[in-house]
Amino acid sequence: MDHCSSLGKTALLIAMAEENETEDYVSSAREKGFEVVTGKVGSMDVQKVIAAVETAAKRASLIDNNYRSQHALYHAILDALQGLGRGPLQLGNVLRTVGLRFAVVKGPRTLEDLSDLWIAVSMYGMIGAPIKGHEHEVCGLGINHL
Amino acid sequence: MDHCSSLGKTALLIAMAEENETEDYVSSAREKGFEVVTGKVGSMDVQKVIAAVETAAKRASLIDNNYRSQHALYHAILDALQGLGRGPLQLGNVLRTVGLRFAVVKGPRTLEDLSDLWIAVSMYGMIGAPIKGHEHEVCGLGINHL
Amino acid sequence: MDHCSSLGKTALLIAMAEENETEDYVSSAREKGFEVVTGKVGSMDVQKVIAAVETAAKRASLIDNNYRSQHALYHAILDALQGLGRGPLQLGNVLRTVGLRFAVVKGPRTLEDLSDLWIAVSMYGMIGAPIKGHEHEVCGLGINHL
Amino acid sequence: MDHCSSLGKTALLIAMAEENETEDYVSSAREKGFEVVTGKVGSMDVQKVIAAVETAAKRASLIDNNYRSQHALYHAILDALQGLGRGPLQLGNVLRTVGLRFAVVKGPRTLEDLSDLWIAVSMYGMIGAPIKGHEHEVCGLGINHL
Amino acid sequence: MDHCSSLGKTALLIAMAEENETEDYVSSAREKGFEVVTGKVGSMDVQKVIAAVETAAKRASLIDNNYRSQHALYHAILDALQGLGRGPLQLGNVLRTVGLRFAVVKGPRTLEDLSDLWIAVSMYGMIGAPIKGHEHEVCGLGINHL
Amino acid sequence: MDHCSSLGKTALLIAMAEENETEDYVSSAREKGFEVVTGKVGSMDVQKVIAAVETAAKRASLIDNNYRSQHALYHAILDALQGLGRGPLQLGNVLRTVGLRFAVVKGPRTLEDLSDLWIAVSMYGMIGAPIKGHEHEVCGLGINHL
Repeated sequence: MDHCSSLGKTALLIAMAEENETEDYVSSAREKGFEVVTGKVGSMDVQKVIAAVETAAKRASLIDNNYRSQHALYHAILDALQGLGRGPLQLGNVLRTVGLRFAVVKGPRTLEDLSDLWIAVSMYGMIGAPIKGHEHEVCGLGINHL
Repeated sequence: MDHCSSLGKTALLIAMAEENETEDYVSSAREKGFEVVTGKVGSMDVQKVIAAVETAAKRASLIDNNYRSQHALYHAILDALQGLGRGPLQLGNVLRTVGLRFAVVKGPRTLEDLSDLWIAVSMYGMIGAPIKGHEHEVCGLGINHL
Repeated sequence: MDHCSSLGKTALLIAMAEENETEDYVSSAREKGFEVVTGKVGSMDVQKVIAAVETAAKRASLIDNNYRSQHALYHAILDALQGLGRGPLQLGNVLRTVGLRFAVVKGPRTLEDLSDLWIAVSMYGMIGAPIKGHEHEVCGLGINHL
Repeated sequence: MDHCSSLGKTALLIAMAEENETEDYVSSAREKGFEVVTGKVGSMDVQKVIAAVETAAKRASLIDNNYRSQHALYHAILDALQGLGRGPLQLGNVLRTVGLRFAVVKGPRTLEDLSDLWIAVSMYGMIGAPIKGHEHEVCGLGINHL
Repeated sequence: MDHCSSLGKTALLIAMAEENETEDYVSSAREKGFEVVTGKVGSMDVQKVIAAVETAAKRASLIDNNYRSQHALYHAILDALQGLGRGPLQLGNVLRTVGLRFAVVKGPRTLEDLSDLWIAVSMYGMIGAPIKGHEHEVCGLGINHL
Repeated sequence: MDHCSSLGKTALLIAMAEENETEDYVSSAREKGFEVVTGKVGSMDVQKVIAAVETAAKRASLIDNNYRSQHALYHAILDALQGLGRGPLQLGNVLRTVGLRFAVVKGPRTLEDLSDLWIAVSMYGMIGAPIKGHEHEVCGLGINHL
């Protein structure tokens, strides 16, 4: 994590971090100048996943009340969800459920050009049938300009 | 990487590793019992990305000449490409190009149940316009049973 | 509107007309021989948008009880919804809502060939988060043979 | 049916069989070594169609409690549903309903190579508006390796 | 085939018929009043599959030079292709190829209501990698009003 | 056009304007403070449509060399193309061609809030088979934050 200087990889590594590493990863990213929020959500409803990420980002002030920044975040979320859904953007409707950690990271695409401002949404976790253990890993990344 | 015991995260971390870390990550995964191959591809043609991953996996004997294992790999690749394309599975056709590192990892979904056999395809890199620097990060993960 | 002689543009201009222009636009289209119905719908449910357009078209007798004409209308509606959804045909499921005016116009593709019979569905309005003002314009057009 | 030696066609012919032929078709397929289950489902909910097929296949022991076989079946079902949905994997959400017969067949892709093990899901029936008679035929086939 | 009275099933059974049965199936369908054409196509290009079906239907006069009937046929073909592609409407672009028999059948949805005129396109064959034997069965059905 | 104060409708009306009206519509929009460029493109290649719009917008300085503004434009174009494609983002690949007028408009979503900066891409024209007259109208609108 120490030498990671790009927005998307930072977001992915935080979402994929073990429980006890998360705080270190977030601190490391913040020290480099990235704004970061992370959270968890489990649901069969796509809209609940979207709402969980939006709420976390708003509370952490990564986006403001301006519609433009919320529009940027929303489409980054939809893009991340494409990696999860791999076709239909549906969960319970096609009888599957997810348990995810997500991260939202705001900053330049790379630390080499600090004038650039983007937002990344990463999701990592399990997708599967609503039966314990009947699931496999899944990952999504969405990046949008702010 | 040391404590990573799941198939998909192993694949993702290898594809996302810095150039000089890759060998260590691959060795670490192999010591745990995962079969691994990694490679690079840059193209505007989706079929070239698919072919690069298939060729690498065949050369490294992760899949054999049996159609069933190739069918498993093919659909894991298509799933990973959904995370890349986030909608249309098209690159040059919609005027964009990718530069990727990928990993194919074969093994159990988690080291806690060694009787289980799956295949994971991860891709990480840049997607963008065919103009230098006009690109952002992208990531895909596909997992299928063998 | 006066010199508009094509089915789709007629439908689009009516859906996009200001409140106080609508009646004039509809009259002008009818004088040229087009059958027209227009309406409004706001919803987070795609099926309510579909039902609103179908009900309006049935009440105005643009389609009859014959399944063939209803099949034509249904697929023109789905096509118009693609312009709205721009990917997933979902609204509330992906945490967004629409407020629309729509028009259904029946007639030849162009007034230059009156023997030809088609149906056009246009939709114009706002799509966005369920937060006041957090929305932007959206437009869809679907055309099918009768 | 007598000379049919392939997995997918066997599944399709059973799903398309007339009520009074079904038993003969199933028996004929079983004699050749295919494992078969068939059933009916009518719904506006995609997840109910998926659940009906999964339940039938589990009861008939075509798949076991192992997640790998259920993953194979699930994706064969999703593939069959693509032929039904022809775009969106949605039914009631886009105001349409289905009445289907389905078959799940397990065996080699063709009787000429008995060492090969796959699963086929076929669906045949009517799709349409929730109005009697306002519907047309629809068919889907999904095939996956086991 | 003898007791088959519906448009879609007629089209499916003809496309799925063994080589030596095809003529009988076509004759039987024609005697009942359906207009039928059948053909074969193998390609990695979706547009060649579309063109093969369109050309066959035009030569057999199932559709005339009128754009409306060609529009009906085109969308029935696209719908059948959805069952083949099961997601992306792509073949060579995603490194796969098809070998198909197809049928186009024109007539009422069912012989019980002869006043109704629709068109069905069925496709049945193999899809797979461009390697001999690395393929499985695939099926598509599209139905549209005329 | 005179009383049109919103970004998307301005873009749509310009793309839909008759040849001899276009200049007036563009001038009227510019007087209100919108930046506007318009053009024409006919092609079976989606990437040529994208390139035509991007080139026009760059030449007219609606976007600069900064990747962020080009990313905004690119996704507005893809969104507009969804209204055109109504499912697959393909033209020649599914044997169809388009002849379009397009407009790119930069400005606030509505003249009532001038601090807000967005970009709209509208497309209007004909889509159809590569046969003269075998085509119908089509429309797309994409809107993105800048």
